[in-house]
Amino acid sequence: MPTRPSSTELPVSSEPMIWHGWGDPGQRHGLPDGAEAFLADRIGELGGPTPPVALEDVRVGPSALTEAQRLALAEVVGAASVRDDHRTRVEHAGGKSYPDLVRRRAGEAVAAPDAVLLPADHDEVARLLAVCVSERIAVVPFGGGTSVVGGVEPERGPFDALVSLDLSRLDRLLHLDEDSRIAVFQPGLRGPHAEALLRERGYTLGHFPQSYAYATLGGYVATRSAGQASTGYGRIDDLVVGVRCATPEGELRLGHGAGSAAGPDLVSLLTGSEGTLGVLTEVALRVAPAPEVELHEAWVAPSFASGAATLRALVQAGVAPTITRLSDEEETATALAQQSRARTAALRRYLGLRGIETPCLMILGWEGTERRVERDRAATHEVLAERRLVRLGRRAGASWAKGRFQGPYLRDELMDRGVMVETLETAASWQRLGGLYLAVRRALQDTLEGRGTPPLVLCHVSHLYPSGASLYFTWVARQEHGAVLDQWHAAKRAASDAIVANGGTITHHHAVGTDHRAWMHDEVGPLGVAALRAVKERLDPVGILNPGKLLPLGPGDTLPRHGADHVAPS
Amino acid sequence: MPTRPSSTELPVSSEPMIWHGWGDPGQRHGLPDGAEAFLADRIGELGGPTPPVALEDVRVGPSALTEAQRLALAEVVGAASVRDDHRTRVEHAGGKSYPDLVRRRAGEAVAAPDAVLLPADHDEVARLLAVCVSERIAVVPFGGGTSVVGGVEPERGPFDALVSLDLSRLDRLLHLDEDSRIAVFQPGLRGPHAEALLRERGYTLGHFPQSYAYATLGGYVATRSAGQASTGYGRIDDLVVGVRCATPEGELRLGHGAGSAAGPDLVSLLTGSEGTLGVLTEVALRVAPAPEVELHEAWVAPSFASGAATLRALVQAGVAPTITRLSDEEETATALAQQSRARTAALRRYLGLRGIETPCLMILGWEGTERRVERDRAATHEVLAERRLVRLGRRAGASWAKGRFQGPYLRDELMDRGVMVETLETAASWQRLGGLYLAVRRALQDTLEGRGTPPLVLCHVSHLYPSGASLYFTWVARQEHGAVLDQWHAAKRAASDAIVANGGTITHHHAVGTDHRAWMHDEVGPLGVAALRAVKERLDPVGILNPGKLLPLGPGDTLPRHGADHVAPS
Repeated sequence: MPTRPSSTELPVSSEPMIWHGWGDPGQRHGLPDGAEAFLADRIGELGGPTPPVALEDVRVGPSALTEAQRLALAEVVGAASVRDDHRTRVEHAGGKSYPDLVRRRAGEAVAAPDAVLLPADHDEVARLLAVCVSERIAVVPFGGGTSVVGGVEPERGPFDALVSLDLSRLDRLLHLDEDSRIAVFQPGLRGPHAEALLRERGYTLGHFPQSYAYATLGGYVATRSAGQASTGYGRIDDLVVGVRCATPEGELRLGHGAGSAAGPDLVSLLTGSEGTLGVLTEVALRVAPAPEVELHEAWVAPSFASGAATLRALVQAGVAPTITRLSDEEETATALAQQSRARTAALRRYLGLRGIETPCLMILGWEGTERRVERDRAATHEVLAERRLVRLGRRAGASWAKGRFQGPYLRDELMDRGVMVETLETAASWQRLGGLYLAVRRALQDTLEGRGTPPLVLCHVSHLYPSGASLYFTWVARQEHGAVLDQWHAAKRAASDAIVANGGTITHHHAVGTDHRAWMHDEVGPLGVAALRAVKERLDPVGILNPGKLLPLGPGDTLPRHGADHVAPS
Repeated sequence: MPTRPSSTELPVSSEPMIWHGWGDPGQRHGLPDGAEAFLADRIGELGGPTPPVALEDVRVGPSALTEAQRLALAEVVGAASVRDDHRTRVEHAGGKSYPDLVRRRAGEAVAAPDAVLLPADHDEVARLLAVCVSERIAVVPFGGGTSVVGGVEPERGPFDALVSLDLSRLDRLLHLDEDSRIAVFQPGLRGPHAEALLRERGYTLGHFPQSYAYATLGGYVATRSAGQASTGYGRIDDLVVGVRCATPEGELRLGHGAGSAAGPDLVSLLTGSEGTLGVLTEVALRVAPAPEVELHEAWVAPSFASGAATLRALVQAGVAPTITRLSDEEETATALAQQSRARTAALRRYLGLRGIETPCLMILGWEGTERRVERDRAATHEVLAERRLVRLGRRAGASWAKGRFQGPYLRDELMDRGVMVETLETAASWQRLGGLYLAVRRALQDTLEGRGTPPLVLCHVSHLYPSGASLYFTWVARQEHGAVLDQWHAAKRAASDAIVANGGTITHHHAVGTDHRAWMHDEVGPLGVAALRAVKERLDPVGILNPGKLLPLGPGDTLPRHGADHVAPS
């Protein structure tokens, strides 16, 4: 059994995340050296420190649950598992999107659930749904609460009351079938906890989204998640072989563990359903032997386009590493700016001598048996050797691995300084990828420059398929005084329109939530939306499950405004 | 571009199959030497030759279409593309299941479409559906007509008239995106035709079901097909990245060519929908470079169980060959009986010296670049070398490849001699595979022995997944005089009950059709069926599309009796 330290070994915790930002503020390390000067040069001077308001100053309305409703819910789970204290309600008042944090940090009146329910098992979930149907209470299934697209917003729809169904007590590994390499989990396990349980037995799930420290297995499946190592292990869609699901109309148990032709794959219908069709209470996932070796290397490509062509060659030759990631010129420059000037200058000289003036950083990671990693790495290197890439080596690779889950903390640092930081992701066929990249970049740049807040737009490819790849954009700009959410709204909308106009999917792994639902008509057509709605109406006829998510509200639906636009820069 | 001959290079033909059996009778070569004696020993003496009745003696009722209906249909496609001659109607009177052939060979009154329509493009398909909705005419989408589960039975449901929508004129490769390795096809192309178009450009689809010579690409997708090389290239579910579909409620265009998290995967909802939700008019499929090398080898395992354990080791180590197939003891004995006695005896001696008394034949096939095949083959051999397998070599492998699409012709030979030949397939996790194998075998044996017609039951594994594998059963028995269909019914029902009771899927790649629909309640539960039905009702509210397929008729639905039981042995 492997004993080497792994970069995915994080503390197993069931503590809630800080209500106004990411994770555990104790893990924040300030802005990296050089970042402030670099940003000032690109987007203008950062603001002074503007911390969030105190928790008690976050305004939340009184709970709309009646006493009878509270009693009916408590009858199922016990009074201690029906929580409506201020802190718990604020902690469940949405996910971790930029607009979520803007509102919460400002202490603006935020929508919050009227209570947070903590069921212990499938039967309690099913019975809670029955109470909510008969009492007409909206239900938001809540896993890690890490959604960055409004997936756990407490949108009430037509209902007077809303509860958050927190699945954190459903946190067991129910069964590990080592012959078939299938593990059956309850949905509320967080990534590091699931991984620790598997590693004890010599296995890994191989699923490491950036939200890994807090996201749950049920959340992975409900949102069609992909992780940093999905090029190797497969996205969650590839790993899920079965689900158990509680719906207002009864239970679904789906999946056999191997290929089937028995009608459309209904496991796929639940995967990505974002809590709108039912509540996942068990997920059966493929696991792999825990790797003996994890090896990360950094390489440099002479341009984003040529680097992408190399990635395409790798994946189409069947020799893409487990982790494969390529930053564009801007993202690479931003990363280099966080090192010492001397080191960056030396690196630029080194690359210049090899004909590389606009370096694009490539991170490659192999996981598996020592033997296998050696063989696969040799096969990858062979393809790389035919192209003009330069190897930086393992130290730079290890440095990426060390910081692989730190990104969200940096957002908090920047928001403290009046900076908008937002990400979005898409994917397309290889043929359309270049055009899509340029169009989304241009949309973000034009929109934010037009508002007087020129952005820094970064991009990387992080998931490869033989037929295409993902693009992950990060943009950073000074917050627009007096129009913080309006500024976000304009940028997000322009980027989303550019995505669907250029052959991209509206989301590669963040899911739909509230923020992408208006583009579902572009994604699957009005009739595709209607087909999904038909399933929803059959499984949840009263419509209590996660209102306002996934399905557009109507043909004229648009990006939700997420509250008032007059929120001051935080 | 590869120029070596391939075992999948079959003549490109658009000729219909013979109405009473498989394909082109000119390709039949009689029973192999030794087969008759072997069978006589196992199941009893074969009957004398009993050929099918003449085509003109097959009884088909008059067309139920009114003249006005015929004119409305002809207005869309032209009068020449609305056919109702006797031959065309009989050729579309179902697929190629054993009960289909029993009835047609006997000349019993068979249900037949009232007309066969031959649209030329998507728009004609859509307009035909509109006519059929307003005229209340049932529509059976018809690709290659190779279904062995009743998938193209002309079941009318509540409608007075029924047409077969023959897609053979939609036979173009519309687009090949070489960067993304995606080809967009019309649905009516047969396997060899699609393959020839791709090979001209240096590509392959890599999809070779036994029905390859006649099955169509649209049929592959509509039935969630898997082919002989699917362990390497992936099943059709893995290859399909987009579809265009005409439904009575409008058009669906789905898929972007790369990973997405934009809600449940609706391409998966159309894949396996068996013409009940819409008519596929375009399919976007992943293609691979045409292999430089195709290399087949035969090996022998000492038992089915140990051979299966070896296959599991191969696929879980990521070194399973493109084609991986393992016959059980009976199937191997049956194959050996078709060789000369001297050769078989020599082989048994050779194996006996190596400790193998009950040989199980394993066929392994590698496809790819010369380099890649060499490397992959070495990796496979390494795993095989650790186990007690014996290599027979390439001649036996080539012999399998040569006959790979011949199986259905052998069925015709045997039906001519009063023998029932039927196949069925399932799949399960590795952990449940052994129990499933024994249970299905026992169900078939007990049922048919109990009726006085002891069967020969053969089985092989032919598709591997890290989590499980398929089982493909063939059974052969003397037809039961005066109860030919009743005999089939009893065996099929017993096997299907055994499958669902032992953790198997009711079908791994033949699809549901009429014959498996009663087990869909076991497969996905009543609520899963209800969810599918909700989609059906949204896309096809009048219910004209392929009535009686895929969805159970009700909770008490059962295996259809396929006509009268008094059909004489053919």
